[in-house]
Amino acid sequence: MLALHLDGSPKLLADYPEPKRRPGEALLQTRIAGICDTDLQLVRGYMQHRGVLGHEAVADVIESEDPAWIGQRVVVDINAGCGRCPDCTNDDGHHCQTRTVLGIDGRDGVLAERFTMPERCLVRVPDSVADDCAVFAEPLAAALHVLDEIDPECVERAIVIGDGKLGLLIGLVLAQTRIAVTLVGHHREKLDLLAAHRVQALLETEAVDVLARADLVVEASGSERGLALALRLVCPRGKIILKTTTAAKTEVPLAPLVIDEIALVGSRCGDIQVAIDWLARGTLDPTPFIAARYPLTQADLALHHAGMQNALKVLVTVPHLPLPRAAQDGS
Amino acid sequence: MLALHLDGSPKLLADYPEPKRRPGEALLQTRIAGICDTDLQLVRGYMQHRGVLGHEAVADVIESEDPAWIGQRVVVDINAGCGRCPDCTNDDGHHCQTRTVLGIDGRDGVLAERFTMPERCLVRVPDSVADDCAVFAEPLAAALHVLDEIDPECVERAIVIGDGKLGLLIGLVLAQTRIAVTLVGHHREKLDLLAAHRVQALLETEAVDVLARADLVVEASGSERGLALALRLVCPRGKIILKTTTAAKTEVPLAPLVIDEIALVGSRCGDIQVAIDWLARGTLDPTPFIAARYPLTQADLALHHAGMQNALKVLVTVPHLPLPRAAQDGS
Repeated sequence: MLALHLDGSPKLLADYPEPKRRPGEALLQTRIAGICDTDLQLVRGYMQHRGVLGHEAVADVIESEDPAWIGQRVVVDINAGCGRCPDCTNDDGHHCQTRTVLGIDGRDGVLAERFTMPERCLVRVPDSVADDCAVFAEPLAAALHVLDEIDPECVERAIVIGDGKLGLLIGLVLAQTRIAVTLVGHHREKLDLLAAHRVQALLETEAVDVLARADLVVEASGSERGLALALRLVCPRGKIILKTTTAAKTEVPLAPLVIDEIALVGSRCGDIQVAIDWLARGTLDPTPFIAARYPLTQADLALHHAGMQNALKVLVTVPHLPLPRAAQDGS
Repeated sequence: MLALHLDGSPKLLADYPEPKRRPGEALLQTRIAGICDTDLQLVRGYMQHRGVLGHEAVADVIESEDPAWIGQRVVVDINAGCGRCPDCTNDDGHHCQTRTVLGIDGRDGVLAERFTMPERCLVRVPDSVADDCAVFAEPLAAALHVLDEIDPECVERAIVIGDGKLGLLIGLVLAQTRIAVTLVGHHREKLDLLAAHRVQALLETEAVDVLARADLVVEASGSERGLALALRLVCPRGKIILKTTTAAKTEVPLAPLVIDEIALVGSRCGDIQVAIDWLARGTLDPTPFIAARYPLTQADLALHHAGMQNALKVLVTVPHLPLPRAAQDGS
């Protein structure tokens, strides 16, 4: 099958082997996929991932042991836990120590015609939510996960650092609470996307020296400078939520963290079902963040486009194909 | 008066000027003072403090606008806030932006015959609490402050890194909760001080490779390696409380913080009244941590002793002196 494969460098392969469905897993056919900054980090060597890229997708279930799944349109929680450890059975399995992670760590991703995923990771997409909207479920869940770290009743002001895709989504999410939200970025045209929303969007150059410190700062810039800026902008006893992963070590001055009693909290994936619920209610519309759309046959160009400074969400569409013989046979 | 003064290097001065009491402040006569690792950091240049050292003391109030304070034996909250800002009026003033800090930042400390402090920072010591015990109120409050950052009902296991004075106190405090506590240090003779308590005390060399990860890690070693060790020992979704301040920047790998969703929380001073309440109830006895006792005339030797590797709490005693003329005149 066709797949965008990473092995040192990313390559579009026409003859990548069909995925093999293991017990408890579904075989899925990608309808539409999104490219994330993490994909770009992976290309730069983060996680030493070798395999098919991509972890944001809307897909159709084409094989499953459970006939109720067949034909369902779904989004997926990217964390494929073992299903048996305490983290998988008592919690969401996001920290299962033997997990694989879709398109990131030990598991082929969604930038292919087909992929597999444990059925417990699937969330059905209601008919009212279009593919273009549902494809944002994974990053929206990550943005919504910020709310799991705070009590919105106790936060007065939040500053989001970074006007990338995730930063913008976090800005929109926080704007749905009673918190006063400022987003600090570098690109006026991206900041303007928040104009209709209850978010003060400022260029870093115009903002930083005049901005009062906030009790919550969300670092979503993915840059090494982001944390230093967050430390400048957070109040004593405030919280910094780190949303982005980079391979590099960062020099952190720890004394201000202690003196000002700052909490620095890492935050990764959220609950995909909650994201789909928000999209189904129409609480938030992420589709203005779509920058471009490529067919899977041009997924390499899509990745290149996503890597350009300033790029918003680049989507990759997979035309509905006749099922391959192996899948039809149910093997 | 006699005072241990820092100006680049620490010097015992016989003719240091008498402190001037400002409105709202009490004049206090030191009975006994403790030397803290922060004092040693100050000598190394931390905070660029210039002035009298020392911030742990039991003292007698010898002058105050409020006659009820005169003659009281007290301990002091080291944070002298402005008394007017929201942090001072709604909270404890520990983060007042114009605060001075006793013996640390902009305010002469307690390693002198006399010092001043705002009256709202004073806490009376009950007669049942001896000086040797009450002198631990400040570091004990800092140790107890760990409990403000956690819900002891939700933490199963805690690892305290560091067998210094603060680490040992934190071990004793956590041992009073239902949490299973392990303290990791470098000195068998210090670890043995916890033998009678509900704390598993291990040498780092024997501990680290066999120790299961814990949901709470308290970094109290003050060493640069401490945080790296804490990151190895904390569970996913766990919390690291940073209790020690150093002048140096530290390289922190941020990706594990995000991937494992760790919270790194700075923690400084606690509530002195709570510490005195614990001491008055006899919940915990810190006096086995006393290593040595020097008169103020040998405070320089006391500082040297405290700086020796392995040293526990070094105390400095100040004999009750006749009040100087200026204090008797109430100027």
